[in-house]
Amino acid sequence: MIATGIIVEYNPFHNGHLYHIKQSRELTDADVIIAVMSGHFLQRGEPAFVDKWTRTKMALENGADLVIELPYIYATAQASDFAKGGVLLLEALQCDFLSFGSEQGDITPFLNTYELLEAHNDKLQENIKRFVKTGLSYPQALNTAYQQLLSDTELTYADLTKPNNILGYHYVENIKKYNTNIKPITIQRIQAGYHEKIDNGKTIASATGIRQEIQEKHSLQSVTSFLPKSSLQTLTEWHEDFKHFASWELFWPYLRFSILRLSPEQIALYAEVTEGIEFSIIQVAKECNDFNSFMHKVKSKRYTWTRIQRMLTHIFTNFTWQQLHSSNKPSYIRLLGMSKNGQHYLSERKKLFTLPVISRVASSSDSMLLQDIHATDLYMLALGKNKMGMDYKIPPIRY
Amino acid sequence: MIATGIIVEYNPFHNGHLYHIKQSRELTDADVIIAVMSGHFLQRGEPAFVDKWTRTKMALENGADLVIELPYIYATAQASDFAKGGVLLLEALQCDFLSFGSEQGDITPFLNTYELLEAHNDKLQENIKRFVKTGLSYPQALNTAYQQLLSDTELTYADLTKPNNILGYHYVENIKKYNTNIKPITIQRIQAGYHEKIDNGKTIASATGIRQEIQEKHSLQSVTSFLPKSSLQTLTEWHEDFKHFASWELFWPYLRFSILRLSPEQIALYAEVTEGIEFSIIQVAKECNDFNSFMHKVKSKRYTWTRIQRMLTHIFTNFTWQQLHSSNKPSYIRLLGMSKNGQHYLSERKKLFTLPVISRVASSSDSMLLQDIHATDLYMLALGKNKMGMDYKIPPIRY
Repeated sequence: MIATGIIVEYNPFHNGHLYHIKQSRELTDADVIIAVMSGHFLQRGEPAFVDKWTRTKMALENGADLVIELPYIYATAQASDFAKGGVLLLEALQCDFLSFGSEQGDITPFLNTYELLEAHNDKLQENIKRFVKTGLSYPQALNTAYQQLLSDTELTYADLTKPNNILGYHYVENIKKYNTNIKPITIQRIQAGYHEKIDNGKTIASATGIRQEIQEKHSLQSVTSFLPKSSLQTLTEWHEDFKHFASWELFWPYLRFSILRLSPEQIALYAEVTEGIEFSIIQVAKECNDFNSFMHKVKSKRYTWTRIQRMLTHIFTNFTWQQLHSSNKPSYIRLLGMSKNGQHYLSERKKLFTLPVISRVASSSDSMLLQDIHATDLYMLALGKNKMGMDYKIPPIRY
Repeated sequence: MIATGIIVEYNPFHNGHLYHIKQSRELTDADVIIAVMSGHFLQRGEPAFVDKWTRTKMALENGADLVIELPYIYATAQASDFAKGGVLLLEALQCDFLSFGSEQGDITPFLNTYELLEAHNDKLQENIKRFVKTGLSYPQALNTAYQQLLSDTELTYADLTKPNNILGYHYVENIKKYNTNIKPITIQRIQAGYHEKIDNGKTIASATGIRQEIQEKHSLQSVTSFLPKSSLQTLTEWHEDFKHFASWELFWPYLRFSILRLSPEQIALYAEVTEGIEFSIIQVAKECNDFNSFMHKVKSKRYTWTRIQRMLTHIFTNFTWQQLHSSNKPSYIRLLGMSKNGQHYLSERKKLFTLPVISRVASSSDSMLLQDIHATDLYMLALGKNKMGMDYKIPPIRY
């Protein structure tokens, strides 16, 4: 059996994701598609639009065979650690391929970039530090230092100004670094940029564009052409049930209360909070009654929007630098859902997996798993769903 | 000028309080009545029904000449520390008398009780410890140990099963202990027990009864006979403005989120949290969607309702054992309001005060004052008033 892995957020699942699954299956002749998916908080430092079980359902209805949770600590991390968590889980699951979407659509530039950066890593790191000191954000500094290295050569390299290319580069990096047996491939993303607004003439739009449209219109009507029918149905049911989707704007009263309850010294203990930004976070939280104005006021040249949102995620979920530094590699495979095909793969291959599979969460003392459970509780609470401990109660979704 | 001090919560101000002010003025021939009043969190571990400026207004309209804030650390403490804060502030303010309401209405039993307990303090403390170990709550243990001492004598003593007598005893204790020049007197409370429901045939009801009635009926109509006209007017305006009064029930979503955000180890750091109750607090907060059912489930023989509420107050406001133990005596006189008469007293006597008077809060690093300001912010936030830093903005109320 050929197993192809993908690393996803499905926030929410749309036609671009469907295309990615189909292409990945075709190109690798895969028997199973294994999706490692973030839980309730995402890489851009945001709460997921709908809960992880709802997103698992959408994935299974559209071609994923196994959905595995990417633990909180990786799901909310910067690109290199996000990629590390995903790659190591796919390796533990005995995947043959990792297929990622990218702006470039050809794996060679990613491999070239990896070789180049490995060969000149010391120089690169030194230059990044230098640029950060001049006031550039980390991504800007990385890209500037990278561009300097490129000027010497004639090969094709990955364009690291594109968000999906950055992730792709880190997938390749981790595949190599950990000596995995995974073969990376890439599918060209079509029709929609990462942050672009929707375009009604098309059938593919970015997840960001789709979410914005739904939030602005308080309706799914104008995004129907971008979603598989089953996703549309699932999101419509959610909307009828809860009247809203999760967002920082919705969670703002709780996030704001959490910030203002704490002292600057306490805020500074949370993961990703550095260099005195805790004072600004508290001061601006006092002034702003909504999340959007908060972000615009707290934003500075030094930090990207995403970086600040990640700090807020960790404040919200009570996740400290100490916890961030205490973990290294994934310690479990948390099964969120499976198709019949996926179930078959599990029973065939499970004995080869290098990590234990958790189908039903029992009482656990694994700090990585406890943080996933904790994040679920706070997500549900802020959403107004009064059900706690859902991770203990919901079995893997079968399709 | 004769100055008579009173220590109050005015939660809310009612006819019993009016009677207490009038009687105190008459009995001591007072020129000024100085009320030391709790801020936004009270001795029973609850948020105040309305904010401290609104309660200051009601006090001034009904005969108080100066309203001084009792700092959070004392206002939310057990009776002995509550009394200590109040007494030391009245001493700093050069008060001649302290007049308190009590069930007994005669000062002699309080003085006798003080002498007795001073003389047998070692034995008393030893017996209290012994009774606490058998499973009694602290107030039960204190009273049982106290009853044993009484059996030997023929004088009249204070009945320490009555809440106002307990406070009265601690006023006398602190007056003596700190060698103050204050003379204690007591006024007999009339017509209403501390926790009693309202009785419509009367004009005096307990503050607890009045609050319960207002919350149940969502209206002030059935409590009009228990309130001075000006208080009724002030509370009616508040109700029109905010549609609700502050209570743990109203604050529950924020309190619950604060509890569930934290680990048991973190909860155990908060003031008054002891002996593993942090696990029960977290577990029960997961289960309960309202405050009342939470309290009924978390309540045990070991702890009084009030003691648990005080723990919750400190969790809510992020106030730790360490902070509780870091302070000793009041360090400032925070002026919340004054009548013309009170203003006159201030200009005459201010130079004799043993603590600085704070009329307008500027930036401060006094940790006791910072906690008052912090408590105001969190109270306002949970109430849905989006105004932060009110302590810096609102000048003393003049009447």
